[in-house]
Parts: sequence; structure tokens; C-alpha cells
Amino acid sequence: MSNTNILYQHGTLALLVPGLLDGTITMKELLSHGDTGIGTGEGLDGELVILDGTPYQVDSNGNVNIVKNDFTLPFANIHFGSYQPLTNVDGISQKELEEKILSLTSANTFFSIELHGQFTNVKTRAVKKSHKPYDTLAKTAESQSIFEKDTVTGTLLSYYSPEIFDGAAVGGFHHHFLSDEHDFGGHLLSFGTASGDVKLQQFDTLEQHLPVKNQSYMDFDFSGEDILGDIHKSE
Amino acid sequence: MSNTNILYQHGTLALLVPGLLDGTITMKELLSHGDTGIGTGEGLDGELVILDGTPYQVDSNGNVNIVKNDFTLPFANIHFGSYQPLTNVDGISQKELEEKILSLTSANTFFSIELHGQFTNVKTRAVKKSHKPYDTLAKTAESQSIFEKDTVTGTLLSYYSPEIFDGAAVGGFHHHFLSDEHDFGGHLLSFGTASGDVKLQQFDTLEQHLPVKNQSYMDFDFSGEDILGDIHKSE
Repeated sequence: MSNTNILYQHGTLALLVPGLLDGTITMKELLSHGDTGIGTGEGLDGELVILDGTPYQVDSNGNVNIVKNDFTLPFANIHFGSYQPLTNVDGISQKELEEKILSLTSANTFFSIELHGQFTNVKTRAVKKSHKPYDTLAKTAESQSIFEKDTVTGTLLSYYSPEIFDGAAVGGFHHHFLSDEHDFGGHLLSFGTASGDVKLQQFDTLEQHLPVKNQSYMDFDFSGEDILGDIHKSE
Repeated sequence: MSNTNILYQHGTLALLVPGLLDGTITMKELLSHGDTGIGTGEGLDGELVILDGTPYQVDSNGNVNIVKNDFTLPFANIHFGSYQPLTNVDGISQKELEEKILSLTSANTFFSIELHGQFTNVKTRAVKKSHKPYDTLAKTAESQSIFEKDTVTGTLLSYYSPEIFDGAAVGGFHHHFLSDEHDFGGHLLSFGTASGDVKLQQFDTLEQHLPVKNQSYMDFDFSGEDILGDIHKSE
């Protein structure tokens, strides 16, 4: 029943802004919607990268852990991987890479990029898990750890959301990274250059799932929040 | 395989703004995703109301037609109807109705309302079909027909989208109307009072489908458009 045209999203980045950080889906349930993805744990517990059905968590100490079926998440993107070759790059900057991808595919639908190869000057971050009552995203992001590597071989896993869906998702690219050695990764802040094979998977459907059983979410009054402004500051 | 937790959306209101009005889904395909819904035809060809699996079109002459399987649409919302009683209202204004509904259910997820009953001073509109090259939504809306009834018995079919999804959908209520006599209806502009049974169906999933095979859509540059501003003016 797997459909490789579907990007499944649990939660929205909008709900992270005011600190609605309860884990509202288990990893077991999430993995029923795909084998490739990104996310964060309850209370912003690290940065997740799911590759070939294995959920890796980069925690705030920089350790890479495989999380269990009962690990819960407030936000995740996942899909069944079925990438097509798009292009090869050699020593390209992040800006050049993003521009090249958008010159080769439409910016008006959701897609994922997988780039396995060599990277220089990679900077990632992972947030430290917070507990109830959770802080806002802006506040929690202040205590993030930043990790850097001069050169590293690994996988860049990215999702692109059309600007017209800004809010539901963050318009533009959202990149996570995991090294082949499983000793480095997280939410990508920046890299110097990338070299390797760029693969593309385009979706025709966003399956947006909301945590309707979470009373904190359902009762929250978003009307006073500058959701988009805060997302763009923190992401 | 019907899932009453899912709201299926084909296209987005954002693509209507610059006039991307090709019909990109057939009624036959649309009806595989539900039996209750709203939409518009290619070139903004009237206003659709789908009730119990029957697709009624209110055209710009005010006629109510049942459309065929090969009728195509650039935009539609549809779901499998499974409503629960919410409240009864008697001579309530539109503003009071919307406030009452939001006091009884969460504004943070998608839901549908069905209100069958008596209405006064109902004002609806239907747009005249335009042909390629299509005009923008603002321009097309200038040639809309407006219909009015002092008193009418019928069904108000509404979808509510959370404000945090403004863009993907129009945040707030989107109402269509069809009279029991099938002689009056369209996109609801306003009513004076409503009396009858209000039923609610809450969704946990928005299945957002995009017309990735439509080259006009995929190639369009949205960056110069004030999508949200134009939607709010026209809807």
C-alpha cells in the first residue's frame, strides 16, 4: 500500500512556535507512513534522520542514537523513498546547489532531495530536550548545540515546500544531515561545498496529519502569535 | 477504504489567483475521494456542491445542473460524509452561527459543517466560465452573477480551515449552499438568519493533492503574486 507520491507530515512547524512540544505520534506509527524522513522528538529532543527505515537521532551532545518504536515526536516528515537521479555536483556551494535543483524541477510542489557524497565545512545543530511546561521555539533554540566538521562523507536529506504553503510547512528547503560513520549530523545550518550524486523524488500529495487528540494543541489560541515570523527566525 | 477523518483537497486557492484555471481532476476521480464536497469547474465554471455523491453545479445563470463524470475542476474539497449532531439554531445570524460553532469545536484542525434548514435573505454567487488565456481571479470575479432569496429551505455545506494553514486553504469558513428544490445555490456570500440542525465532521488529515501533470501550474512563478491578499479580497 506504499505510495511514493505522498509526503506524510505529522504536526506543523507552526505548533512548535508557541512550544506545543508533546510527542503526538510514535516512531512505530510514523514508520507505517514511510522509510525516509526527518523530525524532532518530544520537547525538541534532538534531530531525527530516517534512512532506509532506520530512525537515527542526533542528540544535543552530538551522539547518534537509533530510537525505539515508542519514541514520540511532535513533528515529522516521512515518505517511502523512490528517488530518481537528478544531477551530479562537484564542489558546489549550498546556494548554488539549491539554485541548481530549482532550475531542474518545479518549485510548485513538494519534493525531497537525497545527496550522498563529500561535504566540507558542515555546520549542524541539535536542540536539548525540554520538559513541560515547554518553552517557545525561539527560547528553546537558544540552548541548541552546534557541531562542525571540516570534511565528512554522508547523506543530506532535504524536503522542499512551495512558498505558497509557507505556514503549513516552511517554504523552501529544510535539510538534515547524517554522516556515513554515524558520528555526526543534525539539522543542517550550512555547508561549504558538496560533491556527489543528487537524487530527486517529487510528490503530488501532502498528507497533513494533525494531533487532534492532543488537548494542548486543540485548545491553543494561535491568534496572538507571529507564527511565520518566528519560524523563519528559528529555522 | 473510505476514511472519514480525511479531507481531500485538489489544487489550492492560491493557484486560482493568477488564473491557473485548467481542469486538472475529473469528477469521476474526485468522487473516489468522497461523497460530500465543494469546488469549481475549469475556467471557474460555476460553483459545485456535492451531496450524497451527487455533484450539483450552480452555473452563472443560476441554473442547477448535475455534472458528468468527465467534468473537470481546478479546485475542490471532498470527503466521505459522517457528521455528528453539534447544535440546533433558530433564527441565528451568520456571524453568530460561526461564533457558536467555534465555541463548540477547536479552530486548530479542518472540519466541515452541514446545516439543513430554513434560511432568510440568502445571497450567493456563481462565476461565468472563462476560456484560455484565463483572467486572474480578481478579474474573473468581476463578472460574477449574484442570486438572492428572501426565504429558502436548503443545505449549507461549509469547510473550516485553521488560520495557520492560510495559503494552502483560506483560513476560516468557506460556505456553499443548495436549496432543497435544486433551484438556487452557489458560493454563499451572506445570509440573514438560519434555523435548523447543525452537524459537524472533524478531520485529522488534510490530503492536499497538487496538479503536478499540469505544466502551466508547475512552471508558474508565484514569487510576484500577493496570493493571500488576493484570496481574501475575492473569497
